[in-house]
Amino acid sequence: MSPRPVSIIGIGQMPVERASARSLRELGADAIRQALADAGVERVDALFAGNMLADELQGQKHLAALLADEAGLRGVEALHVRAATASGAAALRMAYLVVASGEADLAVAVGAEKMSEGGAVPALAKALDAEQEVPRGASLIGRNAELMRLYRERYHCPEDAFVNFPVVAHANARHNPNAVFREMRATPRTVLASRVIYPPLRLFDCAPICDGAAAVVLAPREQARAYTEHAVNLLASSVATDRFRLDDRRDSLRLEAARLSAQAAFRRANVNVNDIDLFELHDAFSIMACLLLEAAGFAAPGDGWRLAAEKAIGLRGRIPIATFGGLKARGHPIGATALYQAAEIVLQLTGRAGRNQVRAARIGMMQSVGGAASTVITHLFGV
Amino acid sequence: MSPRPVSIIGIGQMPVERASARSLRELGADAIRQALADAGVERVDALFAGNMLADELQGQKHLAALLADEAGLRGVEALHVRAATASGAAALRMAYLVVASGEADLAVAVGAEKMSEGGAVPALAKALDAEQEVPRGASLIGRNAELMRLYRERYHCPEDAFVNFPVVAHANARHNPNAVFREMRATPRTVLASRVIYPPLRLFDCAPICDGAAAVVLAPREQARAYTEHAVNLLASSVATDRFRLDDRRDSLRLEAARLSAQAAFRRANVNVNDIDLFELHDAFSIMACLLLEAAGFAAPGDGWRLAAEKAIGLRGRIPIATFGGLKARGHPIGATALYQAAEIVLQLTGRAGRNQVRAARIGMMQSVGGAASTVITHLFGV
Repeated sequence: MSPRPVSIIGIGQMPVERASARSLRELGADAIRQALADAGVERVDALFAGNMLADELQGQKHLAALLADEAGLRGVEALHVRAATASGAAALRMAYLVVASGEADLAVAVGAEKMSEGGAVPALAKALDAEQEVPRGASLIGRNAELMRLYRERYHCPEDAFVNFPVVAHANARHNPNAVFREMRATPRTVLASRVIYPPLRLFDCAPICDGAAAVVLAPREQARAYTEHAVNLLASSVATDRFRLDDRRDSLRLEAARLSAQAAFRRANVNVNDIDLFELHDAFSIMACLLLEAAGFAAPGDGWRLAAEKAIGLRGRIPIATFGGLKARGHPIGATALYQAAEIVLQLTGRAGRNQVRAARIGMMQSVGGAASTVITHLFGV
Repeated sequence: MSPRPVSIIGIGQMPVERASARSLRELGADAIRQALADAGVERVDALFAGNMLADELQGQKHLAALLADEAGLRGVEALHVRAATASGAAALRMAYLVVASGEADLAVAVGAEKMSEGGAVPALAKALDAEQEVPRGASLIGRNAELMRLYRERYHCPEDAFVNFPVVAHANARHNPNAVFREMRATPRTVLASRVIYPPLRLFDCAPICDGAAAVVLAPREQARAYTEHAVNLLASSVATDRFRLDDRRDSLRLEAARLSAQAAFRRANVNVNDIDLFELHDAFSIMACLLLEAAGFAAPGDGWRLAAEKAIGLRGRIPIATFGGLKARGHPIGATALYQAAEIVLQLTGRAGRNQVRAARIGMMQSVGGAASTVITHLFGV
């Protein structure tokens, strides 16, 4: 049996901020209401929430029902879905499944995260192995630093190999009203002069800690045009896992979960890597952006950094990434991030990206990374 | 579009224990392997994990990918689904959706919880409202105590009105090798003499803190018979929410989410309450069992306790509940509980319940409650 085709019919994005005046529930409910208003609907059948840190930061373990209540969606199905730092994409996949199965006709996927309330970094480390890695001091930042060091050693790339990842992201964030760093410029010089966070990672290699919420509304493709002129088709949704720990993988620079989920999504949508017009990837760290470009097949292993060096990742380049600033400069409120990515792809594919518009964008790809790429989730969108 | 019909083709249950020698990941992986072996499959396309407390108790926020790795399921889709204390049922619903949609042909829903590692009770309170309830001292036990007090006041039921809920549960647990209390007897006298935990709740009105894991394997109904003689159809899966806080509801003794999700499930399966042969309900507290019987329509409001008093809830009664001991006496390792319930219903409907067999059982119902019934999830099974 083929899944029922599904489209995105509405989007909502709250501004990403270092510290929002809104509470987590207010952020989430406002994003939901904005997405419903954009879709022209007052109600949905189901709500799926993405969030990683509320257990520790807000003391909340029942977030989906809370957000449904806060948004005034009485009686609705509401569940919380997680895959560590890929939790927003997990919520999108579930919303896709409930509509694709025929169990619901309207669903909202919402992501919300409020990291400014303290303790985010130790809670983020819980994406790793609590028995084998964390007790030995492992953190997400440390794991990405190891990958970057290994990459540099193996491929002997120049000192400034990764510099254009943040430079492009910050340039694209300038015209995104929801970006946390819309006021901040980054040049190769400022990137290379920024302080070292965890060698060899510099400040500009890392996405910031911030607050935000975003949402998208899904409907069956055959009904989408009745709701909006701006519908975008969800061509594929795919989740894959790798050996959980980096240390257990044959080659930690080959992101197997990213490769598997990209290949499955390409097959499902009947496209190949050359058909992708833009790629909202998980640039929580510059090295992760580079490795994802390689895993999906945009570059050979060891060549991902060249796409940045050659500015092929810019809005006019061969494979634009982070077109509204990415995790680096739009910001990375963890569980919300994938819903921002999805909303941005919708804007691109419907020609509403303004000064950030990628020309003739017809197929958009998005990937979200859980932990040290133990989970990778791919979605493909098309018009 | 109608969802593709789905069946359960394999089950796995680890013994529920006060403190297991196995780690959380070992419990989960063992339950998965047992369910796969029971189904006669070596691999699944997707894994959905239910768990509520690992963030705090095991420091683990990326559990689904970890369990997939531990169980040797390389590359598989793996996501973690939650609805507080109903998290196991949330995982079952997602596994249902992935197969019903046609996105996967084989999925496993696994629940695992290890509560013996300390701090479970404060973490459980995070099922309530962290801003409005918990700072005022609310807990899940306290909320259920309030419901019981209100019920007693409104309906003037006798002192021993609820006593048969634990008596029946403990009697049924005696022949369940996986029950935590298979050695413990309960009589009306011992129940009424047990210590008060939170007035008017006595020890025997409350499910215990314990460790456990269970899993079920799902496949398309049309393929189920190729795998096993013991397939059971998943007739309906339904989630509903209520106003999040008890205080915001018109009548806190009417469990609106339970009513809504039961009614939706009955409609989907084209059955009514009189067709249900057994009901694995969420008897975390005696009062919750009583209110769920009323919400689903087995008794009028105020009459749920009479079903217990009249022993209509026994194995030979009109509506058997907790047929293998229920949450009260099989045990309630939170995120695993619904998968035990599902496995037990499979045993009942396939005539493999041994001394606990409900005669001529053809349709089984199961409900899981998130928090103070802010979320209720209903599943119906049939042969």
